[in-house]
Amino acid sequence: MNEFELIAHLTQSLPTNENVVVGAGDDCAVLDLGAPDCLILFKTDAVVEGFHFTRETPPEKIGRKALARGLSDIAAMAGTPTAALVTLALPKDFDAEFAGKIYAGLKALAEQHRVAIVGGETTTNPERILISIALLGTVPRGKPVLRRGAQVGDAIFVTGELGGSRAGRHLDFEPRLAEARWLAAHFSLHALLDLSDGLAGDLRHILNAGKVGAVLLKTALPVSRAAKLNAKAGTTAKPAALAALTDGEDFELLFTVASRDAVKLLDAWKQEFPRVKLSCIGKIIAGEGILLRDKNSAHPLNAQGYVHFS
Amino acid sequence: MNEFELIAHLTQSLPTNENVVVGAGDDCAVLDLGAPDCLILFKTDAVVEGFHFTRETPPEKIGRKALARGLSDIAAMAGTPTAALVTLALPKDFDAEFAGKIYAGLKALAEQHRVAIVGGETTTNPERILISIALLGTVPRGKPVLRRGAQVGDAIFVTGELGGSRAGRHLDFEPRLAEARWLAAHFSLHALLDLSDGLAGDLRHILNAGKVGAVLLKTALPVSRAAKLNAKAGTTAKPAALAALTDGEDFELLFTVASRDAVKLLDAWKQEFPRVKLSCIGKIIAGEGILLRDKNSAHPLNAQGYVHFS
Repeated sequence: MNEFELIAHLTQSLPTNENVVVGAGDDCAVLDLGAPDCLILFKTDAVVEGFHFTRETPPEKIGRKALARGLSDIAAMAGTPTAALVTLALPKDFDAEFAGKIYAGLKALAEQHRVAIVGGETTTNPERILISIALLGTVPRGKPVLRRGAQVGDAIFVTGELGGSRAGRHLDFEPRLAEARWLAAHFSLHALLDLSDGLAGDLRHILNAGKVGAVLLKTALPVSRAAKLNAKAGTTAKPAALAALTDGEDFELLFTVASRDAVKLLDAWKQEFPRVKLSCIGKIIAGEGILLRDKNSAHPLNAQGYVHFS
Repeated sequence: MNEFELIAHLTQSLPTNENVVVGAGDDCAVLDLGAPDCLILFKTDAVVEGFHFTRETPPEKIGRKALARGLSDIAAMAGTPTAALVTLALPKDFDAEFAGKIYAGLKALAEQHRVAIVGGETTTNPERILISIALLGTVPRGKPVLRRGAQVGDAIFVTGELGGSRAGRHLDFEPRLAEARWLAAHFSLHALLDLSDGLAGDLRHILNAGKVGAVLLKTALPVSRAAKLNAKAGTTAKPAALAALTDGEDFELLFTVASRDAVKLLDAWKQEFPRVKLSCIGKIIAGEGILLRDKNSAHPLNAQGYVHFS
C-alpha cells in the first residue's frame, strides 16, 4: 500500500459536522465558523529530517521551508494565512541555538506574510528532527478555489518554472499567496492546487476530481534552469522535460480557466507580476489521464507521473 | 536548558497580528476571525512512541489518546471542539491495519464529541510512531477562561482524582469538555487549565500568570486508587499524596473561583455531574509558590513539583 492508498484507506467515512464545507482531500480543509464574510482554512504540513532536509541544511532554511509548504497550501485555496502553531520534535541532545535558528527562519517568513505564530510545542523524537506546522487562514465566502471544477476545453496554466527544485529552490521558494488571491479576485478559476509531488502526479488530482483528462504540450513546459543543468550533468539524470513533469517540491500554482479567459489572463498577469513566469501548458479534454504531445506524437503519462520517453 | 526554558527561549517576540486575542502560553491560542458570536480556539498536541505510548499499546487507544489530549486543552478554555487534522508519522514498515486501528480510536472519540476530522497527512518517521493532532474549536465571545486571573482569596478546585494515571487512565480519560462549558456558563471562573504535567507543576502556571501564591490542604487532595495501589506496591514508589501532586497526565480541570461562590458551586456540581468528583483543595494567597498544609505543618513545594516530605 503506497502513501496515497493508505490515506484513502484511513480517510474513509471520517466524522463530520455542520461546520465542514470541504473535508479531507483538497489542499486545505474549509470550515464555516459563522464569520459573515469569510470561511476558515485549516491545514497541517510536516517536514522530516532525512526526507525534506538534512542535518546539514542551514537551520533557518529548515524553519522557513516548514512554514512555506503550508503557506503554499493556503495559496492553493486562494486564501490568506492568519496564524500558525509550530510542533518541533527534537532529538534529546537538541542544541538550543540550532532550534532558535529554525525558529528565526520560521519567524522571518511569518512576518513577511503577516502570519501570527500563536504557540505550539516542543516534544522529543530521539532519532531525527520533525517539524509540523498547523495553519489557519481565511478566504472570502464563496471564493475558495478547489481541486474539482476543471471543465472540458479549459486552458491549463502553471506559474514559475518546474523541475530540479531539490537542487536548492525547495528551501527558498516563495509561496504564491499574492498571485493566487489576485487570480481568484480577477478571474473565474475552475480548479487550483499547488505542485508538491510533481506536475504529472498533481495534475491527476485535478483530473480525477473533475472526471476529465488533459493534453500537455511538451514544448510549452516551463523547464527550470536547474532541471536543464541536472540533465546535462550526467547520463543517469532525467531528461529536463521529464524532470519538469515529475520532480516534486515545485510549489508552483497549477490551475485551469475557461479558454476564452486565457489570453486576457496572460496579458493581465504580465502587468501584475512581470517577474513571475506564467505558462499555458495544455488543455482539459474529455476522457481520463494525461497525454503529452510533442511535434510528432502524443505519449500517455502513467499514474506515477513517469512517461515512457521514446 | 529544559523543555520549559527552551519554549520560553523560542517563543520570545513571536510575530503577531490583529486577529490574535491570546497567543502562545495558554492552553489554546485564541483568535478573532470575525464571527459575531464566537472566538476561535487553535491547538496542536503530539504523542510519541516510547514516551506517551509503546508499540504494545492497543492502537485504538493510541489514536484515542492523541485526540483526547487536545480535547482536554479545548476544555481548558471552556470551549467546544469543531474540527481536527491528523498528522500520522509512521515507520517505513508501517502496517496499514495498525494505522487503521489508530484511526478507529481517533474517529470513535471524535464522533462522541461531534468533532469533524477534516484531513491531515501521513509522513515517514523511520524509528517510531508520532501523531500530532491540530484542533479548531470555538468559545463564546468574551468567555474563554485563561490561566491568568486567579485572585487572592479564590478557592482552588480540581475535578476527578489525581495520580497514577500511567497505570492506565492516561489511555482512557474523558476530556472534561461538558464540565468546563457548564462551569463557565454558570460561574465566574477566574483561572482554568487542564492538568497534564502534575498538579504542583501546573498550578504554578496559574500562580505565575496571576502573580499569586497558593496553599493546598494535603487531606483535601483527591488521591486516585491507582496512586494508592502504586504506593502500597513497593518501598521505591512515591507516597500516594506525592503522586497526586506530581504525576502527569491527569487531564483533570484545575480552576479558581471567588470563595463566596465555592459552596454554591459544589452543590450545583453534585446535581449536574453526580459521578464526577469535584474537590476544593486550597486557596489562593498573596505571595508566590505553593505551600502544602497538613495537620501539623506546611511545606513549600519546589519548582519541579516535588515536596520534601518529612
